[in-house]
Amino acid sequence: MDQRISLITLGVADIGIARAFYEELGWSGQSPDGDVVFFQAGGMVLALWNRHTLAQDSAVDDDRDGWGGVTLAHNVSSPAEVDAILEQAEAAGATIGRRGAPTFWGGYSGVFIDLDGHVWEVAHNPGWILEPDGSVRLQRES
Amino acid sequence: MDQRISLITLGVADIGIARAFYEELGWSGQSPDGDVVFFQAGGMVLALWNRHTLAQDSAVDDDRDGWGGVTLAHNVSSPAEVDAILEQAEAAGATIGRRGAPTFWGGYSGVFIDLDGHVWEVAHNPGWILEPDGSVRLQRES
Repeated sequence: MDQRISLITLGVADIGIARAFYEELGWSGQSPDGDVVFFQAGGMVLALWNRHTLAQDSAVDDDRDGWGGVTLAHNVSSPAEVDAILEQAEAAGATIGRRGAPTFWGGYSGVFIDLDGHVWEVAHNPGWILEPDGSVRLQRES
Repeated sequence: MDQRISLITLGVADIGIARAFYEELGWSGQSPDGDVVFFQAGGMVLALWNRHTLAQDSAVDDDRDGWGGVTLAHNVSSPAEVDAILEQAEAAGATIGRRGAPTFWGGYSGVFIDLDGHVWEVAHNPGWILEPDGSVRLQRES
């Protein structure tokens, strides 16, 4: 199994509302059938799909409708950009989990929670390489 | 907010056991501190971290310890590769959610569930472009 992820699907209550939220953040999606929305995100895809349908398709039979131990992150080049994206997300209806602040690992980050409870950390990590195309690279292990 | 994801963190019960599972699948991680493990995955990073710590860091106060509406997918070039990866995951201790089979969307996929309940669909999608470097590209909207 190669070391990569092709697709992340987020289960949502209302596909139209969820799509509008991400488009409010500046993303542009496409929907082949009206039921699923795909966003090209670098070399992978983020999808939005009905949470119950996703649970069935994922062979999950006990969806308790909360957080499930998965947090996404979006890295940017500066603390100011962290704050700007958190403001943008809040204006689009997200809940702010925590405001931008210095982190224990030497960076700066905050958290917003989307309309369906999915958690995004917005982070500036001076220890990682953020390429011009948005790719993130770990430093080599020392 | 640019249309990309920098990092996905999976909350796990035991970092050593979780790391060993992904390394059994052929992945190679690095841990700066022994508490978190990072896997470079194309232009992004997959991390493993203690689920309770991740919940706190993510401003989640009601982690009910189940699935949370997020499913990952790993796309490959053929149905045979889907089956091979499911076998590899099962041998490493994963639960098979569903065996490889044709899908309603015209591809072929199966599901494995990792040791901490995180769901991976392994898929062959003939409608998407799988680049030699593992990147996935949506077809243009028709």
